[in-house]
Amino acid sequence: MTYCVGLMLNKGLVFMSDTRTNSGIDNISTFRKMHTWEVPGERSITLMTAGNLATTQAVVSLLDERSKQPGDRHPGILEAASMFQVATLVGNVLKEVISTHAQTGQQANSAFNATMILGGQVGDGEPRLFLIYPEGNFIEASFDTPFFQVGETKYGRPILVRAYDPDMSFEDAIKLLLLSFDSTIKANLSVSLPLDVHVYHAGSLQSGEIFRIEADDPYYETISSGWGSALRDAFHGLPDFTFPAETVQRATGS
Amino acid sequence: MTYCVGLMLNKGLVFMSDTRTNSGIDNISTFRKMHTWEVPGERSITLMTAGNLATTQAVVSLLDERSKQPGDRHPGILEAASMFQVATLVGNVLKEVISTHAQTGQQANSAFNATMILGGQVGDGEPRLFLIYPEGNFIEASFDTPFFQVGETKYGRPILVRAYDPDMSFEDAIKLLLLSFDSTIKANLSVSLPLDVHVYHAGSLQSGEIFRIEADDPYYETISSGWGSALRDAFHGLPDFTFPAETVQRATGS
Repeated sequence: MTYCVGLMLNKGLVFMSDTRTNSGIDNISTFRKMHTWEVPGERSITLMTAGNLATTQAVVSLLDERSKQPGDRHPGILEAASMFQVATLVGNVLKEVISTHAQTGQQANSAFNATMILGGQVGDGEPRLFLIYPEGNFIEASFDTPFFQVGETKYGRPILVRAYDPDMSFEDAIKLLLLSFDSTIKANLSVSLPLDVHVYHAGSLQSGEIFRIEADDPYYETISSGWGSALRDAFHGLPDFTFPAETVQRATGS
Repeated sequence: MTYCVGLMLNKGLVFMSDTRTNSGIDNISTFRKMHTWEVPGERSITLMTAGNLATTQAVVSLLDERSKQPGDRHPGILEAASMFQVATLVGNVLKEVISTHAQTGQQANSAFNATMILGGQVGDGEPRLFLIYPEGNFIEASFDTPFFQVGETKYGRPILVRAYDPDMSFEDAIKLLLLSFDSTIKANLSVSLPLDVHVYHAGSLQSGEIFRIEADDPYYETISSGWGSALRDAFHGLPDFTFPAETVQRATGS
């Protein structure tokens, strides 16, 4: 499993992905699931992947190769004229890779599927964020749906829904994402640190802060342990429940 | 979908279930998923069901009929000598019902599966809580794993894990469960109010408070709206994130 989130803010885009992959619980590895391409002053593109590792690695390798071969029949993601074209390209490559593996050679029981979050900015366009399906089609984030999650999405969703604000700072967005990841990591063994982060500043047309939060990161540990007591305080701060009068009479037999 | 939780406390057992069933998003109904049997002074047994509605209703009807026919070859759940025997009986009935529908007549694409939470107390035994699988086998809660969820379990799990305490009062347990249900209801349209509640007092050997929390319940509304701002306060109360120095230099190009 995997957990990746792409968040759209007024200030730009924030991407966070975990690094754990597993093929059965006795075969666990660390792989990078976040990939960034840039042409400074012209474009910055980030892709996060969830699903079959062979599929996602093949997609990233093909995108890489095509970005280095300008004569290829496909324009590479470094030449595509807009984020929409980049998303179309990535979707097509993803669909091709899946269908190649699905139709030839040995058949596997598990699907070769993968789902991807793509975000960035190209030239005069706005920063854009897409969710790309295994079928190669995609949807785009808006301020009604300002973030996309892929992988193990459920545990970490309630806090995102409650605390997201499009005006929040990058620092607050990272804090929020760490809480969402912490809820997921606590519940699902197949999602784990280290976490990769990319903060893209709207209009900068170059990659922003790219860094990795390691398993022993002191800030993550502070957030993770502090959140438990903060939640308990919030819980106790809410008004207390009292039983409806008629049920109490029933229970006490009076 | 469905969401049901059974919680084991030092003071007793708390059960909460939603009431929404759906067969496609355009076919939504309200059905009771919590069923309680009692022989005051001797036993109280509560069953909550998730899964195929035809299966779960058949199981409950069979349990009901057998409890009224003492001469049946199966002892009914009102005669079984322990909670373990009750769980065995419910598991067997569940397995029978599923296999009957799976092997005869028209085949459906969706499974006839169901999963159940069973809890209560019989005679001199302790209060016990079980999770019963479609295969008819079951596991029992302990103070390492003090609660069971069935149905749409993920959204509501983080708050349970963080705030559960075996010493908590019944009132606090209901508040906690309402928060867990609220997170689930906000995320999944197929889980919804009204909610059924049963609070079983350890050693009472009779049903405790049984009541329904309706869709317009003022306490639920207070909790639901208050939790959003309480979470945001908790979020802002945690220490702020600061970017690692080297990444800031990279991003500003200095």
